Amino acid sequence: MELVEWLHKQVTDDPRALRWFSEPGSDARIARAYKELLAGYEIEPSELLKTTRVLEPNEEPGRVEVKDIRFYSICAHHFLPFFGQVDLAYEPGDRILGLGKLPRIVDAYARRFQIQEDLVRDVARAMMEYGHARGVRVRSSAQHLCMCGRGPSSQTSITHTEFALGTLAGS
Amino acid sequence: MELVEWLHKQVTDDPRALRWFSEPGSDARIARAYKELLAGYEIEPSELLKTTRVLEPNEEPGRVEVKDIRFYSICAHHFLPFFGQVDLAYEPGDRILGLGKLPRIVDAYARRFQIQEDLVRDVARAMMEYGHARGVRVRSSAQHLCMCGRGPSSQTSITHTEFALGTLAGS
Amino acid sequence: MELVEWLHKQVTDDPRALRWFSEPGSDARIARAYKELLAGYEIEPSELLKTTRVLEPNEEPGRVEVKDIRFYSICAHHFLPFFGQVDLAYEPGDRILGLGKLPRIVDAYARRFQIQEDLVRDVARAMMEYGHARGVRVRSSAQHLCMCGRGPSSQTSITHTEFALGTLAGS
Amino acid sequence: MELVEWLHKQVTDDPRALRWFSEPGSDARIARAYKELLAGYEIEPSELLKTTRVLEPNEEPGRVEVKDIRFYSICAHHFLPFFGQVDLAYEPGDRILGLGKLPRIVDAYARRFQIQEDLVRDVARAMMEYGHARGVRVRSSAQHLCMCGRGPSSQTSITHTEFALGTLAGS
Amino acid sequence: MELVEWLHKQVTDDPRALRWFSEPGSDARIARAYKELLAGYEIEPSELLKTTRVLEPNEEPGRVEVKDIRFYSICAHHFLPFFGQVDLAYEPGDRILGLGKLPRIVDAYARRFQIQEDLVRDVARAMMEYGHARGVRVRSSAQHLCMCGRGPSSQTSITHTEFALGTLAGS
Amino acid sequence: MELVEWLHKQVTDDPRALRWFSEPGSDARIARAYKELLAGYEIEPSELLKTTRVLEPNEEPGRVEVKDIRFYSICAHHFLPFFGQVDLAYEPGDRILGLGKLPRIVDAYARRFQIQEDLVRDVARAMMEYGHARGVRVRSSAQHLCMCGRGPSSQTSITHTEFALGTLAGS
Amino acid sequence: MELVEWLHKQVTDDPRALRWFSEPGSDARIARAYKELLAGYEIEPSELLKTTRVLEPNEEPGRVEVKDIRFYSICAHHFLPFFGQVDLAYEPGDRILGLGKLPRIVDAYARRFQIQEDLVRDVARAMMEYGHARGVRVRSSAQHLCMCGRGPSSQTSITHTEFALGTLAGS
Amino acid sequence: MELVEWLHKQVTDDPRALRWFSEPGSDARIARAYKELLAGYEIEPSELLKTTRVLEPNEEPGRVEVKDIRFYSICAHHFLPFFGQVDLAYEPGDRILGLGKLPRIVDAYARRFQIQEDLVRDVARAMMEYGHARGVRVRSSAQHLCMCGRGPSSQTSITHTEFALGTLAGS
Amino acid sequence: MELVEWLHKQVTDDPRALRWFSEPGSDARIARAYKELLAGYEIEPSELLKTTRVLEPNEEPGRVEVKDIRFYSICAHHFLPFFGQVDLAYEPGDRILGLGKLPRIVDAYARRFQIQEDLVRDVARAMMEYGHARGVRVRSSAQHLCMCGRGPSSQTSITHTEFALGTLAGS
Amino acid sequence: MELVEWLHKQVTDDPRALRWFSEPGSDARIARAYKELLAGYEIEPSELLKTTRVLEPNEEPGRVEVKDIRFYSICAHHFLPFFGQVDLAYEPGDRILGLGKLPRIVDAYARRFQIQEDLVRDVARAMMEYGHARGVRVRSSAQHLCMCGRGPSSQTSITHTEFALGTLAGS
Repeated sequence: MELVEWLHKQVTDDPRALRWFSEPGSDARIARAYKELLAGYEIEPSELLKTTRVLEPNEEPGRVEVKDIRFYSICAHHFLPFFGQVDLAYEPGDRILGLGKLPRIVDAYARRFQIQEDLVRDVARAMMEYGHARGVRVRSSAQHLCMCGRGPSSQTSITHTEFALGTLAGS
Repeated sequence: MELVEWLHKQVTDDPRALRWFSEPGSDARIARAYKELLAGYEIEPSELLKTTRVLEPNEEPGRVEVKDIRFYSICAHHFLPFFGQVDLAYEPGDRILGLGKLPRIVDAYARRFQIQEDLVRDVARAMMEYGHARGVRVRSSAQHLCMCGRGPSSQTSITHTEFALGTLAGS
Repeated sequence: MELVEWLHKQVTDDPRALRWFSEPGSDARIARAYKELLAGYEIEPSELLKTTRVLEPNEEPGRVEVKDIRFYSICAHHFLPFFGQVDLAYEPGDRILGLGKLPRIVDAYARRFQIQEDLVRDVARAMMEYGHARGVRVRSSAQHLCMCGRGPSSQTSITHTEFALGTLAGS
Repeated sequence: MELVEWLHKQVTDDPRALRWFSEPGSDARIARAYKELLAGYEIEPSELLKTTRVLEPNEEPGRVEVKDIRFYSICAHHFLPFFGQVDLAYEPGDRILGLGKLPRIVDAYARRFQIQEDLVRDVARAMMEYGHARGVRVRSSAQHLCMCGRGPSSQTSITHTEFALGTLAGS
Repeated sequence: MELVEWLHKQVTDDPRALRWFSEPGSDARIARAYKELLAGYEIEPSELLKTTRVLEPNEEPGRVEVKDIRFYSICAHHFLPFFGQVDLAYEPGDRILGLGKLPRIVDAYARRFQIQEDLVRDVARAMMEYGHARGVRVRSSAQHLCMCGRGPSSQTSITHTEFALGTLAGS
Repeated sequence: MELVEWLHKQVTDDPRALRWFSEPGSDARIARAYKELLAGYEIEPSELLKTTRVLEPNEEPGRVEVKDIRFYSICAHHFLPFFGQVDLAYEPGDRILGLGKLPRIVDAYARRFQIQEDLVRDVARAMMEYGHARGVRVRSSAQHLCMCGRGPSSQTSITHTEFALGTLAGS
Repeated sequence: MELVEWLHKQVTDDPRALRWFSEPGSDARIARAYKELLAGYEIEPSELLKTTRVLEPNEEPGRVEVKDIRFYSICAHHFLPFFGQVDLAYEPGDRILGLGKLPRIVDAYARRFQIQEDLVRDVARAMMEYGHARGVRVRSSAQHLCMCGRGPSSQTSITHTEFALGTLAGS
Repeated sequence: MELVEWLHKQVTDDPRALRWFSEPGSDARIARAYKELLAGYEIEPSELLKTTRVLEPNEEPGRVEVKDIRFYSICAHHFLPFFGQVDLAYEPGDRILGLGKLPRIVDAYARRFQIQEDLVRDVARAMMEYGHARGVRVRSSAQHLCMCGRGPSSQTSITHTEFALGTLAGS
Repeated sequence: MELVEWLHKQVTDDPRALRWFSEPGSDARIARAYKELLAGYEIEPSELLKTTRVLEPNEEPGRVEVKDIRFYSICAHHFLPFFGQVDLAYEPGDRILGLGKLPRIVDAYARRFQIQEDLVRDVARAMMEYGHARGVRVRSSAQHLCMCGRGPSSQTSITHTEFALGTLAGS
Repeated sequence: MELVEWLHKQVTDDPRALRWFSEPGSDARIARAYKELLAGYEIEPSELLKTTRVLEPNEEPGRVEVKDIRFYSICAHHFLPFFGQVDLAYEPGDRILGLGKLPRIVDAYARRFQIQEDLVRDVARAMMEYGHARGVRVRSSAQHLCMCGRGPSSQTSITHTEFALGTLAGS
């Protein structure tokens, strides 16, 4: 079955809309785009986080934050994208994690069907469990196309969600 | 009766003003615009807020905030618009609410004759009562045309009102 | 007759809307606000522009521009405000005009029922005819509440109109 | 047939992805969102543009521009949204058009499956043909999710398209 | 007696300076400007603040702030203007005050000979006494021409004064 | 005679206004402030401009511009300050002038009773006559307290004047 | 052979520097990073540009520009990165190219050893030859680490290069 | 041995890549660039910090902060640069240190192979040990080319690390 | 003796450098510039601060802050300028000080050979001792040419110093 | 002879000023700072510009611009620093110059006693003569401490100078 059948049955029978998806190859091209946006399901977060340096006993942990990690996700309710930034702070437990892996853990959970409230929770839990962090705080801000496409009060709004665990809970 | 009669009796008898509203159809066109600005009376807030996901027992609630929700309202005292933004934060109670509904709850109370101090209170109470939030904080900032059209000290001013309930009171 | 009658007949019969305008004094308070927004009809532009200094024969005129003159007006079609800024440039003819009068000539034409395309034309013609300018260019940018209160594509838009005469036409 | 079938066949068989769309009602909810994003097919642009004032013979036309008209559209190639702003300038022909209609003509062509190069052309042609403009210039700038979701060089890029006809061609 | 006599006796005998004020009508024109800048003496603050709505018993008061109220005043020591903004926050006592009156209470005290330290104190006391506020905080920031016209270290400086009473003291 | 007499006769008899100027020493303090604001009359512009380096024959002149020269002046019509910035560009004639002298030539003409249209003309002419420039362009932008203290349309406006001579006329 | 040998022979014999690269796996990890930065050699630009729509005969071409395409490249002289943005404008010839391909053509030439002057030339020529454009203009701005790491005058500088061909040459 | 051998063996055999490094002199030129980026190994931090003034007994120490110290470093894991800013605050112990030395202590640790988490720790410890500070807080923010060159979620991200000791720990 | 002798003996014998200072009058011109930059030694801070108004017993003091006071000073160690801003806040003791005097007390201590750490301490102590303040806080931020002229890590840095006494210590 | 002798004879005999320079070592420390600021005399511009690539016959030259090159110089008239930015654009003649050399050519002429009008001329001539450019344009903007330390009208001003030769003259 093809996407054009679903469109025709559920959304519109306007031929000007449907003609775009009747060309051969269009279904495959769209599927490739969506596969890329859903590539997070292929990633196993527990294997992603690598150790850069093990802390010495009694070494002060310091704090590390990667800000403005861009993400693109698909709203699980409306099948429409939402996208924005994540700020991810953690306090190392027994190890310093590879910096380059922090944006990838965000990517692993964003490239799925998501709701923005769960995205920050999923990342925070992974940092605690797989990254052995003492504490973690994840903040996201995003624009939702499902909100944007509608009434006048939501066109410019930005949604923020936040989740914190361990020593950074309540910070 | 027509708006031009009220204008003529209460505001001005200048024919250059009145001529605009003597054309056939002008009264209906104006009424349509005002009906749209007052469409909030048609909305029943208690039916608006939908549940996206029920929290598991003992699940941390996190925090959700939608910022920069634009609104347009009409000042109940001067029959002139005021407009601006609302920032709406809440801490979920037993459920996560549909993100797209939060701008609509603002819209439902803004598209009425309002005073800005009551707008934030009305939204906050609805979030507690109909959305079962643990806590809510509503902030608005707005420009008032009734203030703008007058003396020199108020042309640029912005009015802020704020109302918080539950776990977010005092935050 | 009272505004509440028009509201009731043309716009809404919701008692929560109408109660605001049934109190004694409310009609007079609203009329005062509108009288102020329409005060431009009381001003005679031909008497407004005063001469600061007469140019000597063969004196270079220079150029004068007053930028960011705020105005508030009422859209003649929807009985709803529009407001914004005017930039007013002129090249003196035989006289330099009092600077403080330039914002007032804008005010004289803005505080009427207007359409934004006519506002710049009215000011430009007055500068030529009553101010004896060699050239004039009037630019306005404004937000319209009648556009704002509606669909999602117009919430943030700004409308620009421009009109130029004499030596500044085409500049 | 349901969207979940297409997803399963063409994109992914991960049950964490598919479960979202197996709930009853999810297909209808998604269809409603897409219907709204494709509502432009319901609008007949030739009937949209209304006349505010007919120009007098020999009257200078002036210039009108509405800037920052937000739009949301769906890329006809990847079935993914693109969105941004349109600036629409025109020089009136024999009539001044209702300002509130200009954002709607943009909306009428944006809420379809589109490519950004055609969007500005469609709006420009409608302004000439149905609005009797002397000249028109349409500029758009947009973010494309199909570009964003991919390689590192395109995450922040903005695409601009422009189309001009009549007296504004080449301006 | 005329201003030119004072200028000549106390400030300068340069004829290029004095000639401006020897024309008939110049003294009256200057007096009109100063009368306007000193119009605050005509306003009785105790009569200015009107009640918009009486709070119900046990109703939470919320907080209201009007920011960026522009003011112009004359420094009582140097007979030269100072001007800037006031931010005025209050927590309602038994009533919500008319929003449009808050800029006017600032105006009433600014359009006098003032010192900036007293301006915020005067407004705060009036809000408590005549507005029955639970608490009030008044902040001002201003440029002083008497400071500006002099040495190089003060040309860009901005002076801030602040005064708070009641529940907002110490906030 | 004292300023307080003029105030009392021409502006106000409110004792709260007059008391400030009845203290001994207040008249002298005010006169000192005004003397400083009018110190330009003491400066002889023809002696101010010094030569840094004489150009060699056939040397290209280059162009020099000093931007954002702050000035404070007193409006000759309303005895109230206006202040802002001057941008002063010149193309050297037979000599390069000392950079530090360019702000002083502005100061020499600003610290007088002035009108903003004449300020730029006076500076431009001095650069040509005393500085032997090939060309000069003087632009000023200023806020006027006489405009600010009044109606709502002028509170934020900025006035620009411009004057150019020689090779920079028309640039 | 390993990178640490080169470092030791050519750059430093400090053991604190060399120890990082003596661990097993470090050479492979570095090689992977460089392979990614040099992946452009794997891409064949002539196969990259796809056609979205063929223009009708006599159809106006319009103009398309993708701005702010981020790139990362390696300076062929110092083996150190430079990175920045490209703005790529073209006027279609006989076809409209897929928008998503324009950032990729930039990527194909940037992910090589490059000099910034050649990067814009390479992209421009490919757009003409493989994309059949009527005209093209490519502008880049970049920071160079080889310039940054040195003397004080170059720490903040940005280098711009530009290349245009066809109808956009000289634009 | 030469860098081109390593490139050929580990990264690429594309002759277009390798040709750049086969010219005589290219290896020496690259080595010079890297020597400069690694010059920190030559600096002995314990000898760097000089005393400007010894505090008197019981003298309040005050606080000193140097903000926006630019640094360039090389990531010890990927042999690729990272660069950004350091803010360095300290509370003097028994001496005030020469201001000009604070950027140099940052430079001494940055011009090495580093990881960003260690950079702030190294500087903080040196300030305590060699500068006899009562307290120190070091914050850094940086862009990493090893993160930038990869997936779409990390192109714009900025990494922050922070380390504090003594009286400024926990500040 | 002349500055050129010192330059020649201590800094450079390049005739292109020395020729500038061999012309008659150059030494006097330089000395005049330095005298002005060191004019603070002529000012007696204890005589500078004047009383505007004596507080009534039990009157709340409020708080006064003058921000962005520009200063220019000469670094006592390198004979090179440093310059920036001071923010000076105080809580009045028994008197309100003349606002115009606060920038002058900064000027009195800045126009000396200084180190930035001592500048804020000197001003704070003078405000307590001569101004009878209850509390004072002085913050400065400055650029140092002695830091700027050197290595790459210090070109953009800004140095902050802060000193507080009395009720504002620790604020 | 020592700098303190010159200071004492020409500028001030205040012991608080002189004491700073009587300590042993202070003269040498100051000389080192000035040597660094005057290091441009040691650089031979004709040897500085290196060739990156020779253009092929008939190859289009393109255009290269390095913006925001920071410089520090010493005003030859007042022995006080001036500093700012240079933008340096050139059109290659028969060769592309090494990018890293362009900031150095600016440095070579800035680290001398200079006047800002000559700095841009010196750099432009060197680019033509030693770099074989077809055209060059050099723009500088700077702050002068000799202007800053004085009267109120010059504290914020920025001086711009510009010089162009060859194909970029008049651009």
